[in-house]
Amino acid sequence: MRPANHVQREARYNALLDAGARCIAEHGYMATRTADICLIAQMSAGNLFHYFPSKQALLLALIAREGQQIQQEMEHLLQEQQPLEALMGFLLHLCQLAEDPHYTGLALEIAALSHRDPQVCKLARHNDLLLREGLAALVRQANDLGLVRPGLCAEQIANWLAVMIDGLFARVAVDPQFAPQAQGPVLQELALHLLQGNRT
Amino acid sequence: MRPANHVQREARYNALLDAGARCIAEHGYMATRTADICLIAQMSAGNLFHYFPSKQALLLALIAREGQQIQQEMEHLLQEQQPLEALMGFLLHLCQLAEDPHYTGLALEIAALSHRDPQVCKLARHNDLLLREGLAALVRQANDLGLVRPGLCAEQIANWLAVMIDGLFARVAVDPQFAPQAQGPVLQELALHLLQGNRT
Repeated sequence: MRPANHVQREARYNALLDAGARCIAEHGYMATRTADICLIAQMSAGNLFHYFPSKQALLLALIAREGQQIQQEMEHLLQEQQPLEALMGFLLHLCQLAEDPHYTGLALEIAALSHRDPQVCKLARHNDLLLREGLAALVRQANDLGLVRPGLCAEQIANWLAVMIDGLFARVAVDPQFAPQAQGPVLQELALHLLQGNRT
Repeated sequence: MRPANHVQREARYNALLDAGARCIAEHGYMATRTADICLIAQMSAGNLFHYFPSKQALLLALIAREGQQIQQEMEHLLQEQQPLEALMGFLLHLCQLAEDPHYTGLALEIAALSHRDPQVCKLARHNDLLLREGLAALVRQANDLGLVRPGLCAEQIANWLAVMIDGLFARVAVDPQFAPQAQGPVLQELALHLLQGNRT
């Protein structure tokens, strides 16, 4: 068992990241002040700066935590018995996430910052690679079980799944009428078409 | 014939917009100075401010011009004899555009600004609507000719074409290995699957 002060440190670290995520999603990175993050996390500025020397350090830690979560999620998916069912469930889960304005707000903000900040770009690209490598591994598992069309390229399928996932998030931003959760079955259908081609 | 000074005004207006597009794509909107735009357009600051009272006014005019171009392109596509061939050609054209770092740089910058600036957001949403309405009209033409599966919803197909188009542009930003031009046939194949379902 970890000592109590370690557990408390981790809880505070995560509470600050959660508060930062909320502020950045709602107001954007530029408009977010560390004072706002402290207010939401109910911690002092001294506490925040103990964990994160700057607003940028908090942002980078937030993207790194997102990377750990992606990695855990992909490892979990790869342990499922049925890789295609696991993939279909994951796609549905992403459509649900795209419905959450906090999640999409943060994702779009990071994508925009990535365009300007090389450190954000590096971490965001690493997270994207983790996702695509996980998806490709899942496709290879399905291939080993003979569940997909022969000769497909797992990386190419993973690229196209990423095209559609990114596209869903982009749609939410530009079209207020677009309801991603209702689009789950179409996303699954297109993914199955990529994996299996025309089924007769 | 238009008087010469009108033609000259229009040429200057467009040259300033072209220079602005280049600067914003290369350096981002925030880092772009009107002095940089003047330098590229080889015009004085007085000239620039005669056409655009501010950098934001130039940006908004740039997005409005993009909207006019989308509208012209969609009208052109709708006059073609073969709506499915017209759509397939248009999708290939977009894959080529996604290969152009100036075009994608500007598109991503506008998407990012759209998240923060209500006026940019309004124009960007209008342009997106023009694109989707054009695509839906093209799908309806194909439907009238019996070229697509019965009962499909043209707006829903247009939404999914937009998902994939936006996704392609997002991929270019996050994955330096991704070559959109080579992905044209996959985009066409997925579009045909949306339109026609499983062809036996």
